[in-house]
Order: sequence, then C-alpha cells, then structure tokens
Amino acid sequence: MDNDGKKKCTVRFEPSGLGIQVPVGTVLLDAAHKAGIYLNSICGGDGYCGKCKVTIDEGQFQSRPTTLLTPQEIRENVVLACQTKVLSDMRATVPKSHALEASQILMDTDAGRFSELAGDVRAAIFKFDPLVQKIFVEMSPPTVHDHTADHERLYLAIRQKIDAPIMQTGFRVLQRLSRLLQSCNYKATVTIGRRGRTTEVIEVEPGDRSKRNFAVAVDLGTTTVVAHLLDLTNATTLDREATYNSQINFGEDYIRRIIYAEENNAFDEMQSRIVQDVNSLIVTLAARQKVDLHEITTVICAGNTAMIHFLLNLDPRRIRREPYVASAGFVPPIRAAEVGIQINRRGLLYCLPGVAAYVGSDIVAGVLTTRIFTRKGIYLFADIGTNGEVVLGNRDWMVCASSSAGPAFEGSGVKHGMRAGAGAIEKVAILDGGLVELKTIGDTPPVGICGSGLLDTLAELFTNGIIDRTGRFKTDGQPGLTRGEEGWQFQLAPAGNGHHEIVITQADIDNLVRSKAGVFAAIRVLMESTQTRPEDLDAVYLAGGFGNFLNVRQAVTIGMLPDVPQEKIQFVGNTSIAGAKTVLLSRKALETAEKIAQSMTYFDLMSHPGYMDEFTRARFLPHTDLSLFPSVTQRATHRV
Amino acid sequence: MDNDGKKKCTVRFEPSGLGIQVPVGTVLLDAAHKAGIYLNSICGGDGYCGKCKVTIDEGQFQSRPTTLLTPQEIRENVVLACQTKVLSDMRATVPKSHALEASQILMDTDAGRFSELAGDVRAAIFKFDPLVQKIFVEMSPPTVHDHTADHERLYLAIRQKIDAPIMQTGFRVLQRLSRLLQSCNYKATVTIGRRGRTTEVIEVEPGDRSKRNFAVAVDLGTTTVVAHLLDLTNATTLDREATYNSQINFGEDYIRRIIYAEENNAFDEMQSRIVQDVNSLIVTLAARQKVDLHEITTVICAGNTAMIHFLLNLDPRRIRREPYVASAGFVPPIRAAEVGIQINRRGLLYCLPGVAAYVGSDIVAGVLTTRIFTRKGIYLFADIGTNGEVVLGNRDWMVCASSSAGPAFEGSGVKHGMRAGAGAIEKVAILDGGLVELKTIGDTPPVGICGSGLLDTLAELFTNGIIDRTGRFKTDGQPGLTRGEEGWQFQLAPAGNGHHEIVITQADIDNLVRSKAGVFAAIRVLMESTQTRPEDLDAVYLAGGFGNFLNVRQAVTIGMLPDVPQEKIQFVGNTSIAGAKTVLLSRKALETAEKIAQSMTYFDLMSHPGYMDEFTRARFLPHTDLSLFPSVTQRATHRV
Repeated sequence: MDNDGKKKCTVRFEPSGLGIQVPVGTVLLDAAHKAGIYLNSICGGDGYCGKCKVTIDEGQFQSRPTTLLTPQEIRENVVLACQTKVLSDMRATVPKSHALEASQILMDTDAGRFSELAGDVRAAIFKFDPLVQKIFVEMSPPTVHDHTADHERLYLAIRQKIDAPIMQTGFRVLQRLSRLLQSCNYKATVTIGRRGRTTEVIEVEPGDRSKRNFAVAVDLGTTTVVAHLLDLTNATTLDREATYNSQINFGEDYIRRIIYAEENNAFDEMQSRIVQDVNSLIVTLAARQKVDLHEITTVICAGNTAMIHFLLNLDPRRIRREPYVASAGFVPPIRAAEVGIQINRRGLLYCLPGVAAYVGSDIVAGVLTTRIFTRKGIYLFADIGTNGEVVLGNRDWMVCASSSAGPAFEGSGVKHGMRAGAGAIEKVAILDGGLVELKTIGDTPPVGICGSGLLDTLAELFTNGIIDRTGRFKTDGQPGLTRGEEGWQFQLAPAGNGHHEIVITQADIDNLVRSKAGVFAAIRVLMESTQTRPEDLDAVYLAGGFGNFLNVRQAVTIGMLPDVPQEKIQFVGNTSIAGAKTVLLSRKALETAEKIAQSMTYFDLMSHPGYMDEFTRARFLPHTDLSLFPSVTQRATHRV
Repeated sequence: MDNDGKKKCTVRFEPSGLGIQVPVGTVLLDAAHKAGIYLNSICGGDGYCGKCKVTIDEGQFQSRPTTLLTPQEIRENVVLACQTKVLSDMRATVPKSHALEASQILMDTDAGRFSELAGDVRAAIFKFDPLVQKIFVEMSPPTVHDHTADHERLYLAIRQKIDAPIMQTGFRVLQRLSRLLQSCNYKATVTIGRRGRTTEVIEVEPGDRSKRNFAVAVDLGTTTVVAHLLDLTNATTLDREATYNSQINFGEDYIRRIIYAEENNAFDEMQSRIVQDVNSLIVTLAARQKVDLHEITTVICAGNTAMIHFLLNLDPRRIRREPYVASAGFVPPIRAAEVGIQINRRGLLYCLPGVAAYVGSDIVAGVLTTRIFTRKGIYLFADIGTNGEVVLGNRDWMVCASSSAGPAFEGSGVKHGMRAGAGAIEKVAILDGGLVELKTIGDTPPVGICGSGLLDTLAELFTNGIIDRTGRFKTDGQPGLTRGEEGWQFQLAPAGNGHHEIVITQADIDNLVRSKAGVFAAIRVLMESTQTRPEDLDAVYLAGGFGNFLNVRQAVTIGMLPDVPQEKIQFVGNTSIAGAKTVLLSRKALETAEKIAQSMTYFDLMSHPGYMDEFTRARFLPHTDLSLFPSVTQRATHRV
C-alpha cells in the first residue's frame, strides 16, 4: 500500500529482468518507462501506432479493445502496453524487435560509422583556436617594486599568450585567486572560455595542468544522441559513443513530445531525460578514456530546435503551433552545470545557433561541414533524420526548409525498421526471381533494416517491378511476395538461426514513399523559388544516420533527390556532430556558424502555397513528372 | 547555560538600553559589539589606545591593570571595555563621547554637505548613458511570415534603441523569456547592464516599467559609509544617507581590521558587516523615497582598496605586509546578490577600479571628478580621510602616493574629535586673550570637533602663538591653557548647558601634526620626483569629510598643503561618491576611470628613500624649512 492507500504490485520485464513496483491500475507502458525499459511508441501512448506490443507471461491485466492486434497475438497474450492496465503482480516479455532496452544498446558501431569531415574542413579554413583553452602561465611574484595586483598580473600573463582584449573573471574564481597564486608561486594553469567577444577566466589551478583539457561534442538527435570525446590540446577525437534519446518513451517525434510535455507539464522531465542521456554518454567516454570529469571543460551541442529547447528547458510550445517560432535560435554559452550536465563545475555548454523552429543547429552544422557557404556554384544539402531538412545555395545566398514527412528512413514507422546498429540490414539487392542479397552491420544475423537498407529495398522493389509507381505491390504473382497479418509483404530474410523473419509491408512502403516525397517536395520548393535547375547543381550532399554503405544512386531512383549524375552526390554522414566539433575547435567557426544561421532564408512549407502540390506529385516513384528523372526512366525502360 | 555548559549573563548598555546575553568571562568590548553598540577602539582591543571607556553601573567584572585610566575614573568604575571580563549580569553606561550608537546616528547632514561635482563634470565631458538602463520595447508578435525567434526578436528591438553590438542574456531570463513576451503581447521592459563591452539582458518585465530604474552610489569609507539614491531615468540624486562603518569595532584603520580578520579568521564577518551597512543605507533610502528594492538595479562603490576587498571578500592580507599588493585593482561587475546586497535579484554591483594597495578607487573617483586627467598645467589632489592620498599630474602624466599618517582629521585619535555630524565644531577662531569663537554643525551645543574645526584649531593655536613650531604648548601663561588629566590642554568650550567641556590636548596636537606631516611629505615626494615647484601648480584640490566651512587657507598655515595662493585651493568635498555617481551615469566615464587607474604611477612611500626625511622635516609648523612657506612666515612675522 502506498500513501494513497492504493495497493501496489510488481511488474518484471523479460528478458532484461528489470522490475518495478507500481500501484494497481498503472498503465503498462508507464510501468515500462519507470523501469527504464524502452518500448517503441510513435504515438506517445495514444493507442494508434500499435508499436508498443509486449507479451504478458503471468499476471492479470485489463486491455482496451484494439484492431492493431491479430487474433493470433490476442491468443498469445500480446497486448499494447499503452492500452493495458496492470491488475496484479506481473511478468511481461518485451519482444526482441524493440531491441532497445538500455542494457542492450551497443551504439559505438553506429557512432563510429559517421563520416568525420571536421578534420578536413578545419585544416582548410579554420585556425585551431578552441572555445575553451588551458594555458600555463608563469608569472613573477609581486615585489615592493612590482605591485601589480594579482588579478591584473594574471590578465597580463594571459594576454602575453593569447589575444584577449576583453576579459572577465568569475566572481568565485576572483575570490580564491590571490591565495591560489601564492600557493603555487605564481605558476598556474588558467582555463579560459570564449563568450562572444569576451574571454572568461573559468578556472585557475596550481601548477601546469594545461595538457589535460577535454571536451564532448554532442549531436542531440530526436532518436539517437551521439557524443564524441575530444582532446582539446591536440584536436583529436579520442572516443565516441551513442545512445537512444530516452525521451522516445514520450513520442518518437518531437512534436509528440512537446504535446506530451504540455499536457503533463513535463518540461522538467523532458530536460532531465535528455540531460541524463548526455551525462551517461559523458561518463562512459570519460571512464573508458581515463579522463576525470573535472578535466572536461566544454560540452558543445548541435541538434534540432526542439531538442535544444528541451535540453535548456526553453519553452518549446510554439514550435508545434502557429506561428511556429522558437524561443531562441541563438543561445549564449552557459555553465553546463546550470542544466545539470556533469563536467567541470564551471565548464561551459555551447549550442550551435539554429535558423528557425524547424531548421535547427544540426543543419547549420551541416552547412558549415559541407562548406556550402564558401562556394561558388549551387549546392544542395539534405539531412534525413526524424525530419528531412534541406538547404540550397552558395556563398552568396542560402535557402532552407524542413519536411516533416516522418522518420521512416530512421527506421521508425517501419515494421522491421531500426537504427544503424549491429544486425541492421544496410544493403539490399533483389536479384532475378526475387532472390535477396543482404549485408548487415557487423555481418551478424539480421535484426531489422536501417536507413540505407530501406532506401535500397524501396529502390530495388521499384526497379524490379515488384511495386508500381504508386508504391503498391504488384500482386500478380511476383516472387518474394507473401501475405502477412497486415496484407501483402515482401520477405527480405526468412526466420532462421536466432532471428525472426524480416519483411517489408505495404504500410512500410507507404511510409517510406511519404518520407521521400516530403524531402523531394521541400527540395522542389527551394529550387523553384530560386529558379535552380537540376543541372545547375554542382553537388548534392546527403547527411543522416543511414548506415555506411549508402548507395546514393538509389536516392535518385526513388525520387528523393533530384536527378543529377551519381558522382555529384556525396554521402556525408553525421554532419551535425562534425560541425559541432569544428566549432568546438575554432572560435572563428562559431562566428561563422552564427553568420550562416543569420544569413539563411527559411521557407515555411506549411504556409507555402506550392508545397502540398509538390508533395502530392512526389508521392509517385520516382515522381508524377517522369521528365524530372530522365536517368531513372531510362534505366527502368532498359530493364523492363 | 549554553551548549558548552558555560553560565550566561545579561549585559545591558545605557543609555540605549540595548542588551545581550553572553557567557560568563566574555570581554565587555565583544559584548558591546554583539549588542550592536559602537565603542571607540583604535587599537582593535589591544588595550593601548584607551578609547573604549565605559562605566560599570551594576555587576561584577574583572579588569586588567592599565595606566590609561585616572584614579578618579577607577573610583567611578570606569573601565576599558577591551580589558574587562563580564562575571555577572551587568549594567554599563557608554559615555556620550562615543556618541556613536547606531540609534543615534543622524548622518544626513554629513552626507548632504559634500559637494557634488558629478553634475558639472558629466554635463561637460560625459554623455548620459547609465551602466544599467531600462528600455521599453514594443515588438510585433511573430507570425507565420515573421518567424524570428523570441530571443533574437528581443535583440533586434533592443538594438533599434541602443548601441549594443555584443549581447548576452542570463540563462534564467532566457528560460522565462518566451512565456513572458507572450503574456504581455510583446510589449516589455528590458533591463540591460553593461559588462565590459558586452550588453547583458538582466531582466525582462511585462509592460512599460522603464520609468522606475534606480541606483545607489556608495562611498565605502573606512570610517563612514555614504550612499546616494539616484533616479537613473533622469540622472537626479533623490536622497542621501550615511552611517558609520560597523567594522570600526575591529579597529579604526583598515590595517588593524585586516590583522583582526586574519587572526580571527573573520573575513566573512568583515564582509557581512560592511554589506549590512550598505543594505541598511539602501533600505533607509528606498523606504524614504518609496522605491521598491526590486527597482534598484545597480549599486556602484568607490572606496579604498582594503574596503573593496572586504566588501567582495577578496584576500586583503598582503595589503598590510610585503609586497603590499592587492588581490584585484580592477573588479568585474558582479551580481549584487552574490555578496548579499539586497537590490533587484539580478541587479549589478560595480566597483570603480583602484590603482594599488594604498591608492584605491576613491582616489580614481577623485581624479575623475576634478578632471585632472583632462588638463594641461599641473594639478594637485589630496584626499584626507583615514589615510591621506595624494595625486599630482595632468592629462599627460599622473603620480600618486598614500600617507598612512593616521585619521586625526577624521576626528579619530583626538580626545574630542568626531565626524562632521550634528554638534561638531566645524569652525574655530581664537581671538586676542584666548577668547574662542565657534560654529557647530546645526548650530547646536558643541559635542566634539570635526576635521575643519581641528584644522582651524591647529592653525589658530599656531598663529596666535599658543603652540610653538614643534606643536608644544607655550606654557608661559598663555590664555586658555589649563592643566587636565593628560597634561596641558586648550579649552575650546567650557562645560555648559547639556554639553561637556571641549578641549584640545597636547596628544591631540601631536596626532594632528603627524597627520599633516604625512600628507605634506607625500606631496613633497611626488613634487620632488616630478620636479614640480609650488608655483607650477595650477590648482590644489582638497577632498574629504571635513565639514562645510573648511578654511582652505588654514591647510597652508599648518603646512599640510604647499604654499600657493588661496584662490588656487579648492575644497571639493566627497569626490569619492561624486566620481562613483559620474561612472554610474555614463559608461564612458567607467572606461575613463579604468584608463585613469591604469595610467597613474604609484609611489610606494614605505620603500621610498626620501619619504622618512620629508616626514621628519614636515613635523614642524608649518615646516622645518620656512622658505617653503613664505606666506605663512610673512603673516606670522606680521602678527608677532
């Protein structure tokens, strides 16, 4: 019995064995969240996505009726966790398809596979001048003939080493300064951080500790949070790690999460979730690299606008409703401790600047990384994540837009979709007769399909004539097609040694087509508005967590990217973290990022008169207007 | 009984009636401090100044033997509070000569009498541009066609009104910003503060509150703390108040206080005392002028280096010992709340920059106020407080020094000395036959003698031949001389209607001569070092809390200031607070103050080879070398 006099019962989740005590009547999805178990849930618990299936092994429960379970599932005690109340002690099994319990997450592969452009870009255009530095200064102690005060003495010493016309010292540092300098005979290590054009003395330590200065760069994705640990003394990346964004329990896209937070006044919890994710990444990296948390002086984040708002607990409500504005696009550096990030107590948290409610700092990082802002000609950048953001331009102008067509290419909203982790199918080829060739990440038995695998699958189904231009299965005896519980489906891998059958369903294809249509429509709006023809494009950059073996050609085949020669398309991986690292390592790059964010013109697609038409036209494979995809038409013709 | 099992007893002090419970064995001076009673104590409780006399009316005590009490006093139960332990419940009377219990302090007269040059100076050379401003901004709310984020929207609106290329927003303000702007339909009042070249958004409030912006300027004197309340919207001084520095209980000069704090690890208490003084002034001013504390956005302080260190709890220990350096001469603006000053929770505390351990920001304020730094020719500035600081120079060069010759002209170390408050003798003329003409502040019966009265007295005793050139009484039957308990003394006022006899003793004269000698020796060192002759001086500015009717001629007569024509000497009052106000009202003035502090060359008199000789030579009236004071010699000759 708890304080309210409610009876409690214990719910244990298999196979992790994690358990939790909850009052009788608790919704099973909430119990799972409290136990720290990840369950897929796109709709955030509204009962219409059908993703949060679990099997009740023991115990009493009460479920609302749903059409999202098959009779077979109902017989096997499979329930939707969000529609089920716990009535007694219970044992429930989380199907492996969720594959996402915290304990099972092994994301280093994922984190490691992203391209890192930071190095090149930095070398090419930015001077190594990190946002936070440690400087060893040796001052001569004061004498009766040299009565400069300690504080000014320190400034003089710092200014002999670096350019710092405007300086500021934290009050607590100032209070301790004099005793500290005396204790180390005026040989001290100064940690300085850049805030705008002000140089702040963050910390003064005795002796030479200048060789121990570390930072963490973070890509705050809606689905995945990636962190890299850097040595700021030599600009090297020491390690990388990733984890699922544990806000996922409140909805798979950020609009859902904003609604959830608003309805439940859960903004603080949203913040604490993402901060916890960041902290756990930092702790993991620090432990592995034998770095003391105190030696981590900087955290830098890039992410979409909503994620930055959640992290800082800024009001995100009008991101999802008119007039669709952010509380802040530019965020000043603050102490990481102010939001609960556990690094050096006085260490700084920087966020890259964003452009608008739907074009965040991850996109600015992408522009920085791909150097569009320095180039002549015309360049296209598309970042396919939970949303699809698109930038078009060059050093003179840049336009951008965001398509909210859904996270299908991140593996969400797809029956066997998953992130690019171990066991994900990342490469698919359909041979004659419906035979399928697969490659999985880590070459393990397949667990699901990640972005590059989904792209391949859609393109291969189309070019092999298994689906038609509307994306419907041609059910006239195509090889590989079977009827599953949800209708027709194409089998990529049969059930086998330790893994279940992996299929792609009609609903999956519809989701994928909708996603690609959203991206392409956004591209079209930008190109039409700037009178850019496909042949004007000097290069197309595709970013996202697809998987390493992305066949960029396939992105044209399905009509997601405009029809340009394959050699003009470059897969650039996670440019969000690459850009964050560039900024971390060069103050000039931060200023540049701010200029980029300021100079980009944002097209709001929701209010754009042409967008819906473009979207509708793009819901064909590759497009309603085949003249836009001559190379695809040519190949398809050739094949048939 | 308290926790230690020690018996407690109650000590009540008359005439205030304030009482306190203390353990048996407590030193009476400490009991007085705890009860909030001010007792003179120059030596800080070491038992050699003999100032802390009280009369025990009832109760048992134990006193150490002392030669500082007369047999008569011992018979009347007069004791030195610092040498007396409380053994039982007790009633003690504090003699009126202390005259300094908190409840009796009426310092508005004192505070009001200081000249205010700020207005002129400001009008002449500085633009009105206060350090903290409130700006009413009316923004158009965002629409789908104008999706600028709230934070950037606010910056745009601010930049339409003021010049603010580098801006910063406090994190808490940023977190609340969006909801707040929505609540007031984007019509808001922004409080902005200048930190170096950065403009900080301190607060955002709904609606138009721009007409309510107040600040307090503080002169942190060793003896007296003076505060002025200003309306920042129109640069007017609304009110003024002063109080004794309650650190006095720990020693009358700051060296004593540093020693006390060091020996008793009482730095925190030192800070809390001065902060309490400042807070009580602020509360008094705010209540009288019906200003909400929240509406006070700024506090600005000038004071000697030790006082600024005490206020901020910076380490002051090496101010008093080799190598005589400050922890900080320049202090960045901080939140007033960080040191416990109770204004707007996010309001800023500025301290004017100081030059060296013994030349503080009060002197920089003096230079700013007298405009020496803008002038051709050569100017001399002397600020006579608890120490005597001296500046010589012009717009091309400035040298400065500090004489620690003691606070006699502040009324300390003088039997009937007192600050320039109600009842203080501020003007003295000795007529033929030893008749004395007096003027008191407020024209009340005399209570004691303030600085200007002491200057007059010394000069009149000398010019009337009552003392000789060494300052000794001529005991050959001079009128007015009597023998008191301490030897020969000159009676300024007999005991009378409600007031005691007021005299000047040989010890008093010795202290005054030592003080003036210290100041003049400092002046001589600076003038010799820069080869400046008296006739090169274009003006001499004399600053300090003397009293309004200062006869500057007398400062030459006694040999404190060089012998220049009277019209070249100007009494400029409290330039410390005047300078603080100038800086408060003009950002440019703060930058100027910083340049002044940086450009002044400090002469350390302790290590200067010529200083002791100059000091010894200056201990005659007016000087050993009469040729330095031709006008005095002439008048004296004429008179005799």
